Parts: sequence; C-alpha cells; structure tokens
Amino acid sequence: MEAHMTGREGGADIGPIGNSPVVILVRPQMAENIGTTARAMANGGLFHMRIVAPRDGWPQERAWRTASGADRILDAAQVFETVDDAVADLHHVYATCPRPRHIVKPVLTARGGAAELREATTRGLKVGLMFGPERAGLDNEDMARADALIRYPLNPAFMSLNLAQAVMIMAYEWWMAVDGTPPRELMTNETHVATKGELENFMGHLFRELDECGFLRNEQKRAGMVRNLRHFFTRGEVTEQELRTLHGVVTELANQRRNR
Amino acid sequence: MEAHMTGREGGADIGPIGNSPVVILVRPQMAENIGTTARAMANGGLFHMRIVAPRDGWPQERAWRTASGADRILDAAQVFETVDDAVADLHHVYATCPRPRHIVKPVLTARGGAAELREATTRGLKVGLMFGPERAGLDNEDMARADALIRYPLNPAFMSLNLAQAVMIMAYEWWMAVDGTPPRELMTNETHVATKGELENFMGHLFRELDECGFLRNEQKRAGMVRNLRHFFTRGEVTEQELRTLHGVVTELANQRRNR
Repeated sequence: MEAHMTGREGGADIGPIGNSPVVILVRPQMAENIGTTARAMANGGLFHMRIVAPRDGWPQERAWRTASGADRILDAAQVFETVDDAVADLHHVYATCPRPRHIVKPVLTARGGAAELREATTRGLKVGLMFGPERAGLDNEDMARADALIRYPLNPAFMSLNLAQAVMIMAYEWWMAVDGTPPRELMTNETHVATKGELENFMGHLFRELDECGFLRNEQKRAGMVRNLRHFFTRGEVTEQELRTLHGVVTELANQRRNR
Repeated sequence: MEAHMTGREGGADIGPIGNSPVVILVRPQMAENIGTTARAMANGGLFHMRIVAPRDGWPQERAWRTASGADRILDAAQVFETVDDAVADLHHVYATCPRPRHIVKPVLTARGGAAELREATTRGLKVGLMFGPERAGLDNEDMARADALIRYPLNPAFMSLNLAQAVMIMAYEWWMAVDGTPPRELMTNETHVATKGELENFMGHLFRELDECGFLRNEQKRAGMVRNLRHFFTRGEVTEQELRTLHGVVTELANQRRNR
C-alpha cells in the first residue's frame, strides 16, 4: 500500500497513512454502512479496512456513494472469509462490544483502547479493531479471538449505536490520543491580544469622556463605577483591533453629544 | 419538561434528563439527519433539541424513522424562526465550526468544550450547542452569537463530517466529561482474579508433572525453564476459574501419558 493516498480520480487525498490500526468489519449487512464507516475512518486517520463475509458481497457501489470521498479506503479494502483469516497477520486485536456477558476479558474504554493502540503501533506492532454486524454485534467466537474488548462509556439507557458512529468514536479517540490542541485558545487571526498598556489607554479615553459628559459626576460612586468597568473589560481577552473599534465607538458617541 | 423521559409508546426510555445542553440545529436540510442526530444525542445523554428554520418544515416523519427509538427527543423538539429566538433564554452558547476564518473568538476542542459545558451546567447555567446546516455550516451571523467556537481535532486532510457524527462527538465528550470508568479493567464476572497463592498452587502442579514426565530433566536448564513459565503465567491476570481449567488440562494430559 502507498504511504500517502493521493490522486483525484478515486476520491479525495485523505492524508498520510502510516502504521494505523486495521478496522475489521465483521459480517457487515448494509453497504451504505461500509461507506459511512470509511468516511468516519478518514475523519480520524484510520485508513486500513478489512471486511469479513459481507452479507451482500463486495464490492458494492452503494458503499462508494455514501463514503463522501473516502473512496481510497474502500478501493484498498480487503475481504476475508473468516475472522481468523482477517486477523492472522496482526499482533493485537481489540473488539468493540456494548454488552459483554459471561466473558473473562480485559475491558477498555474507547480512550483507554486508543491509548493502547497508539502505544502498540509505536512499538511497530500491527493492530486491529473489530466491529460486529449492525444488528447482532460480534458473537462469542469473534470475541474469543480478541485480546481485549472496548466498551464505550455512553448513556446506559440508550446504547443503540450505528456502525459508522461506533467507528467514528474510535477514530476520533485514535486521533485525539496524540493531538496537542489546547482545550481553549483565543483565535485572533490578523490581530493580537491587547497588552495591559493598550487596554489602559482605551480605558483612560473612556473615563475622560465619561468624566466630561458627567456620567461619573458622583464623586462618592466614581471609584466604584470605574472599578466595575475595569472588571468588565478585563474579564475576557480583548484584541488590539477590538480596542481600536471601541476607541471609535467612544469618540463617535462623544462627538455626537458635543454636536447636539 | 419531565425529569425523566419514560413510556413505551413514543420510543425508548432514554434516561434522566437533568440540566443538559440544548442542541440547536440551525437550518437543517434533511429530516433523516435530524433523526440520526436525536439518536446520537440520546447516546451521550443530551436530550433537548431546538431546530431553527428547518428547510423542509417540522415535524417530518422521516426524522422519527431514523431516530432508532430516540423519539422522545424529537417529540419534545422546539422549532424557532431565528437563532436569536433559539438562544434567547440560554446563558452560554457554543458553535461547532470546522474552519473559522477572520473571526476573533475563543476556539475550544470538543473535549475542552464539554468540560466547560459541564462546569456551566453545574453552576445552574443553561447552555446550548449550535450545529450548522449540512452543506454550508454556520454562517458568520450565527457564529457572532456564540460565546466560543468548538473545532474538533480531526484529520485535516478529511474534515467532511456528517451532522449526526458531529453531534455524536460532542455527546460522547459530554458523557465522558464526568465518566469514571477505568481505562482498562479485567471483567471477571462470576469468578475473580487469582491470588498469588492460587497461581503458585497451579504452577506447583504443573512443575511436578513436568518433572515427572522428564520435560525438566536437564538440571542446568531447569531453573531457567521454570522461570520462563512463571514469566508467562504472570504476564496478565489469570482468574481462579481459568486456573481450575488449567489444572484440569495438566491432569488430563498427564493421565493420558501415564495410561499410554
């Protein structure tokens, strides 16, 4: 397989592949779900699809129609007759399973599973993620072939999860396992966060005009009112560009008053 | 609204509601996507849906058909003509947005956003999560009404995300923000993890039989071979039930040998 899925004819360029987990769809029923699964895989940077005994055969044109451009994953998908065949060259296999019963097996969260998948691929191991058929899920024989089960923490009163949704969560956690985006940051684009000096400059302008128009004429209350406005303007970050706009607002309102 | 969505006629019991974020679908196009969104919301414990100017009107039977039993969310969905109307009673509003440009706004990850939503609801604030129409996403006017944007860290080479998938990720992170499931645990069901004593008892049995059959007859190698087997049996957790099975395996193999 190529190191990068490129080219325009067969769908979008979906990025570098690397040693990412193989998504194994066991006895999938609907071709549409295989297509939406490919899309979810591409979203999270999972590029290797294997299909075990697809109910309606393979390839199925409807899969490509629902993949929203993740064609390269479908083009490269491999079909196997049995789970044993599909996992034979893998080192670790995880099986997603909403309600495992009477099984002695490590159970991981999606996040815990993604962390282990990252750790194993970093060591050069080939890993796989099994997903069961839409209606019944993986059976006991399938699960006995997995090293661990992955069960998503989700609303126990409503666990019905679409196949592509289940794949989406694992693909997302796979991506997040190495993502370093800060949880919150101010996007400032062309401008920058105002310095305290720039903010003080604006507040000086504001208070001068407020003094002039008499808004702060009550000497007893003045200090408190000024402080409250300071609290307001320091609650969140302000950009230099926004301060220029606010300077303009104050100037215009003051001029309007003077012209009346 | 009731505190618990119960009853069988109108879909499944989907669990307790509480003060959870309102999911605001802005100008959604396909009723099917509203239905699959309701399903994703139920998965993650989001129960309040608001719909702004749905393209094909509301209600739409196709939404209920694709909700997989999350009918109660659709039954209680509120329709608004404008975003301003839909957010008027909310305290904080977050807008999901894949590619914000030329905007000065805090940008959060899905995880960061979910943490803030939890924090705000704990303080009794009503919060909302805006999702744009399928094709175009939220426009600049919509985003100007949000306190912050949420951008999912995902494969930048393939960001095309289905509406229900986008909602699924936020619903999942909302649930995960307070979930305490350990990342990995051995599910033992009826049995329990073996104690060191139980394991030693089995290994004693094994080594006695291996001594008797001559497998450990090389005195120079014996200590190393015993140690290797100890390493193997202590690599993962073993249950008391599995040890009983292994005792049986050793006994049976040994008896077979003796009977030959």
